[in-house]
Amino acid sequence: METTVEIIARKRNGHALSAEQIERVVRELMEGSFADYQMSALLMAVYFRGMTDAETVALTNAMLRSGDVIDLSDVPGVKVDKHSTGGVGDKVSICLAPLVAACGVPVPMVSGRGLGHSGGTLDKLEAIPGFRVALDVDAFRRIVRDVGCCMIGQTARIAPADKKMYALRDVTATVESIPLIVASILSKKLAEGIDALVLDVKVGRGAFMKTRADARALAEALVSVGTAAGKRVTALLTDMEAPLGRAVGNANETREAIEVLHGRGPEDLVECTLALGSEMLRLGGVAQTDAAAREALRAAIASGAAARTMERMIEAQGGDPRVVAEPSRLADADVVTEIRAPADGWVTRVDALEIGLAAVALGAGRTRADQAVDPAVGIEIAAPRGAKVARGDLLAKVYSRTVESAGAIAGRVGAAFSVAENEPAAPPLVLERIGA
Amino acid sequence: METTVEIIARKRNGHALSAEQIERVVRELMEGSFADYQMSALLMAVYFRGMTDAETVALTNAMLRSGDVIDLSDVPGVKVDKHSTGGVGDKVSICLAPLVAACGVPVPMVSGRGLGHSGGTLDKLEAIPGFRVALDVDAFRRIVRDVGCCMIGQTARIAPADKKMYALRDVTATVESIPLIVASILSKKLAEGIDALVLDVKVGRGAFMKTRADARALAEALVSVGTAAGKRVTALLTDMEAPLGRAVGNANETREAIEVLHGRGPEDLVECTLALGSEMLRLGGVAQTDAAAREALRAAIASGAAARTMERMIEAQGGDPRVVAEPSRLADADVVTEIRAPADGWVTRVDALEIGLAAVALGAGRTRADQAVDPAVGIEIAAPRGAKVARGDLLAKVYSRTVESAGAIAGRVGAAFSVAENEPAAPPLVLERIGA
Repeated sequence: METTVEIIARKRNGHALSAEQIERVVRELMEGSFADYQMSALLMAVYFRGMTDAETVALTNAMLRSGDVIDLSDVPGVKVDKHSTGGVGDKVSICLAPLVAACGVPVPMVSGRGLGHSGGTLDKLEAIPGFRVALDVDAFRRIVRDVGCCMIGQTARIAPADKKMYALRDVTATVESIPLIVASILSKKLAEGIDALVLDVKVGRGAFMKTRADARALAEALVSVGTAAGKRVTALLTDMEAPLGRAVGNANETREAIEVLHGRGPEDLVECTLALGSEMLRLGGVAQTDAAAREALRAAIASGAAARTMERMIEAQGGDPRVVAEPSRLADADVVTEIRAPADGWVTRVDALEIGLAAVALGAGRTRADQAVDPAVGIEIAAPRGAKVARGDLLAKVYSRTVESAGAIAGRVGAAFSVAENEPAAPPLVLERIGA
Repeated sequence: METTVEIIARKRNGHALSAEQIERVVRELMEGSFADYQMSALLMAVYFRGMTDAETVALTNAMLRSGDVIDLSDVPGVKVDKHSTGGVGDKVSICLAPLVAACGVPVPMVSGRGLGHSGGTLDKLEAIPGFRVALDVDAFRRIVRDVGCCMIGQTARIAPADKKMYALRDVTATVESIPLIVASILSKKLAEGIDALVLDVKVGRGAFMKTRADARALAEALVSVGTAAGKRVTALLTDMEAPLGRAVGNANETREAIEVLHGRGPEDLVECTLALGSEMLRLGGVAQTDAAAREALRAAIASGAAARTMERMIEAQGGDPRVVAEPSRLADADVVTEIRAPADGWVTRVDALEIGLAAVALGAGRTRADQAVDPAVGIEIAAPRGAKVARGDLLAKVYSRTVESAGAIAGRVGAAFSVAENEPAAPPLVLERIGA
């Protein structure tokens, strides 16, 4: 048998590794006999040489099998989840899961926390008093079966190889590799016990993928590898030049997601939710066309079924379900700083990255994985991209804990806006669809 | 200041690192704040992206300064060393150092041990009873001054960053990178306190560089970076398709090197010694032309001055100087297995790699750095490449400790020979010269 150094050299020289070779390095990494410094060299070689779909499938499976795979076979129906590659203001999961579940498709969702300028679903959910994201697998399975959806955090037993490899990638400049990103995402999602997956690949300033070509390459790899791994997978490329919706923070984002379930969400957030929900309903087999799916989703909002599913999920996860009927219970921090338009014109740019970084600076996000977030601080956009404003009109509000923390951040938020004389073209939210 | 992860990403993205960035990663590697797994990722990025000469100079200097630099300024003359990239049967250092010293050029030489199919000068020297290669810097300096040459092993205090980085490269498939090879060689050599350096870059089956183009690229980089680091450097590309000389082992190689000092060495070994010695004498300023240098070298052999310098060096390093006058004191192991020609014809190939691996299997070399070698086992080539043989003529003798260990190895040695009907062209030993 070759040495593991020969396996590294093989990848370095541009050859594909066999499934056995990939399984071996992941297994020996977890056992400790393939050292971290060997894995990081292999990861850098993968950065340069890439991986075939077959290699990425093998890596996904090896990472998946490094931990527990949740068995949801006793939950009837086609289990469908959604994963977003992350952005600013992206609270879609919070309204999407109960909405899709209310339409009859079970949604078992394992989410993450915010890091850097990107927010995280778990942080936003924890703004709901009492809401628990750390449930055991039995509780998760029971809630998916009884309520239709459940949203938890990654346990230590789900894809531990991904956790170890991601920690290494983060400190060795090997994050930006499509096969490694694909295997990381899919190994965690496949561990949930899903049958199908919809991917929201964000594109633009506030996204991990800055260009449409990069995002398309990632989406194609995710669909291709996920399909090869035996799941039904589709992907949407959606715009992340500007924040999604109006709220950026934690409590305020959850509040905005609840508003979607009451039929009162901002247009872009509603469209993103419906577009992804339509994919999920079709993968789940409860709708055949986009039109039929959107009809079902709108009906679940109008009837209150989606809001009731949200209440039941919150209750099952230990949270206060009254936030659904009374979203104002999710309150903003007291110190409000207003940012106003410097001139008459149109809002041509709301820079998602800058808004995201300002939210981190406020305390709504984190720069290191061990930091806590403040649920009540955040940013509310009053004049989104495309809005017509007069000089002095409100562009945004910053909610902070202290006056001291507000000043510099308000300046940063102001600089994220551009106001110009000509009306900008309204870019579509969904840029592209990839999948069967 | 950027993070070290950003430094890795910078190299990964194909940008040159500054001297400050390179010094920082080497310093933090030795301090432990730049982790091994970060260094191995950076090394793999260097493998793919390369380094400019300026980067390689900075890396060499950073590795050099990680330890002690020997000060030989109180030794008169231009101090010149020779370094070989390693091969099979390469005992040149052992005769070259005293020969060049006898001509008036001080030779401070820090050598290595054998690993894999390549032998090491220290292992060969230790076949001399009592010879000590672990001397302190003061003794080294005194012997260079008094005798003209001294041959020791790398101390823990010479270029410790090279030691650490090489150990990482060895297990992460990042050995084969020209800037990393250059910095590794030069950091150790510059630590010796030399003024000038001659490089013997071996090419062929038994060498690290298998092709002339690869060897030339390495030689050019060594000359260019060494010159930029302030030393006078020349390089010869020499043939390593077949073993150098007739002896492959340890005691037998030292014996053969001594024979060169008595004017009785095999032609290829003598030519390699004279060619490298000529470079050293010219760099050392004691000869102006190749012809004058060779004349001086031949005179030092004929007069016995070179042999006397060898005796004095051995005595100064604790060894038995009688081996010079009586090389048969360096005896072979008792069990002799003869390999004979299978047909009439010419020896067209003596595969250096196979012979080297057979010597390792005998116990003359090592596959792991912590193994001991047996000085008395080895291979003696009776019919070198180009020899005319009749069926049944002796091709080689294998000297082993036991009959059991001889059989399979003799077969391997036999297979390293090709005997064919047509006389092969005699390739030149020195293929190319690089340098001013």
